[in-house]
Amino acid sequence: MPSQAAILDAHYMARAVELARKGLYTTHPNPRVGCIIVRDGEVVGEGWHVRAGEPHAEVHALRQAGERARGACAYVTLEPCSHHGRTPPCAEALVQAGVARVVAAMQDPNPQVAGNGLRRLQQAGIEVVSGVLEAQARALNPGFLKRMEHGLPFVRAKLAMSLDGRTAMASGESQWITGPAARSAVQRLRARSSVVLTSAASVLQDHARMTVRASELGLDAETTALALSRPPLRVLIDGRLRLPLDAPFFAAGPALVVTAAAPDPCYVAAGHELLVLPGIDGQVDLPALLGVLAERGVNEILLEAGAGLAGAFARLGLIDEFQLFVAGTFLGSQARPLLDWPLTQMSAAPRLKITEMRAVGDDWRVTAIPLPAADV
Amino acid sequence: MPSQAAILDAHYMARAVELARKGLYTTHPNPRVGCIIVRDGEVVGEGWHVRAGEPHAEVHALRQAGERARGACAYVTLEPCSHHGRTPPCAEALVQAGVARVVAAMQDPNPQVAGNGLRRLQQAGIEVVSGVLEAQARALNPGFLKRMEHGLPFVRAKLAMSLDGRTAMASGESQWITGPAARSAVQRLRARSSVVLTSAASVLQDHARMTVRASELGLDAETTALALSRPPLRVLIDGRLRLPLDAPFFAAGPALVVTAAAPDPCYVAAGHELLVLPGIDGQVDLPALLGVLAERGVNEILLEAGAGLAGAFARLGLIDEFQLFVAGTFLGSQARPLLDWPLTQMSAAPRLKITEMRAVGDDWRVTAIPLPAADV
Repeated sequence: MPSQAAILDAHYMARAVELARKGLYTTHPNPRVGCIIVRDGEVVGEGWHVRAGEPHAEVHALRQAGERARGACAYVTLEPCSHHGRTPPCAEALVQAGVARVVAAMQDPNPQVAGNGLRRLQQAGIEVVSGVLEAQARALNPGFLKRMEHGLPFVRAKLAMSLDGRTAMASGESQWITGPAARSAVQRLRARSSVVLTSAASVLQDHARMTVRASELGLDAETTALALSRPPLRVLIDGRLRLPLDAPFFAAGPALVVTAAAPDPCYVAAGHELLVLPGIDGQVDLPALLGVLAERGVNEILLEAGAGLAGAFARLGLIDEFQLFVAGTFLGSQARPLLDWPLTQMSAAPRLKITEMRAVGDDWRVTAIPLPAADV
Repeated sequence: MPSQAAILDAHYMARAVELARKGLYTTHPNPRVGCIIVRDGEVVGEGWHVRAGEPHAEVHALRQAGERARGACAYVTLEPCSHHGRTPPCAEALVQAGVARVVAAMQDPNPQVAGNGLRRLQQAGIEVVSGVLEAQARALNPGFLKRMEHGLPFVRAKLAMSLDGRTAMASGESQWITGPAARSAVQRLRARSSVVLTSAASVLQDHARMTVRASELGLDAETTALALSRPPLRVLIDGRLRLPLDAPFFAAGPALVVTAAAPDPCYVAAGHELLVLPGIDGQVDLPALLGVLAERGVNEILLEAGAGLAGAFARLGLIDEFQLFVAGTFLGSQARPLLDWPLTQMSAAPRLKITEMRAVGDDWRVTAIPLPAADV
């Protein structure tokens, strides 16, 4: 049995996690963080980080608490920062406010913090606890954590398929396999991502724009406005620069085009950025691209592409999570595969952990996480 | 708001449905039926049908109630029978016992009953209600109802596949895609079926016996004993009589072999039955086979076969339910398809309603029901 103190800590931290979630669509490149300040069993302050450059969660919560923060307990989903970034360090603010106790869900993996925030609090005589609801807190920030811990963004691959694992007919015919609720879920996946990554093949096939559309998000007005205030960067992989500049994708706004071809000044002239990253066989160097994007502060990437590019990412082990939207249909044995990934031996088949299957309108959404080869 | 009487009726009927489920593995060709007798708010009798030839649920419940049945209310998941079968009519037994009220979940679609049971009760001055928890009661007996209403068994197709919809490598390598919990669930699907139907190709590939194994059922001792007392008939479709008589499948017990080839007396000599049902192209006539099995009282068929036979059933629209066991792996774009079913246009793609996805050990089980073309 956990102690009553531990039960209360978990209860208040759950509320802080809930607050952090409000920043789902806006905080990147920063992490989503929530904070709650409790004094004598009363919540006297709540805050969440909205967007980079604006105050951190702790500052919002302390402002709301005012003098009542003195002697109170602060619950934060991430270790308070100790460094001067675009805002002053939160650890300092908590010390100044006179809180008696700080409970953090997890240490900040950011090497600029990494325990320094908690140490600063302890040095000031504040009681410090860490690791309360850590799993939930980590789940808030898969991208930020991947980037801090591995120097790479978190890549979430979205694929729409039939029950027999096919994405399109052999002819390419594919649109509207899944219904409006699934499309709305995909819109929310786009909105929470720093980058939406696609291929020229997909965009050519579907005339796709890969934008976030307010009407399809299925969110309340306030959250929709937040989401639209930080749209994801649209990144197009176009090894041979096949997609014409008058395509709907380019008309929808500035994009980053990644190619293995020679630079073409027309892209920049049209307001886009062109990145030349040649790999082998005339393909774009995908690992190098992920490194470049991480350096730019990209936390989560939504990979929306067909069997070709999604298969290439999968074969390279670059996908952290699959989101498979499954429609109640069979497209048959001649239809296109989920991933271009030729395998001959079962021993070579990648293993995944299916973590969730849930209904989304008439379709179902399957979440699967690749397992490291060592776990097989 | 339902009336208090309706709430109580539903409550007691739910218990009767629970009792009926105890007959899941044994009642065929009869339906699973449960009965509960309630007097002055007290449950005075409970019963469920165990197996054909033995007393019906009502008789068990009336025996337990004894004199207390007089003036009581009987809840039955299926209209009490009115005909003399292997046991006397239950409607008569309820009249004799002096019950004041009978609540049935549904009418019996058996043309020998079809409302006659309820009419007999009404004629005797008993208050009769029908249609309480009808959907739950129907779900108890998909096979019995399909056979009574359409003259065909209910065909449940079980397939094990990877997340990308593949059943085996191109080489045929396939065993143990799914784990022990999924295999146990398949054992229970076999045990509840009147027939387990497979193909020579599947049996040759896997040396399968298609038996029910006590140790893998995952049921308590009593239910396991019940299940083993009525093992399903194993039916092998072997168009060209390719499976040798010394195969493990035949060694495991008597089977029904269905072929399009000339009759071979060796099968009968070895204790098996041989049915010659030639269709077109040297294949077995599958619709005719289902008709024959229905005439023999087969309620539920578990179809356990590869892409070939399962695809043939699917193309003919003969499958009532798909049970897809999904393993957390990708077998890749060269692996075998779920169903041999070539389609070129999305407009020809069959639609299904995915009714459930649930975890089964490390694997997941997807239930999908084909929708009639008119619903598309």
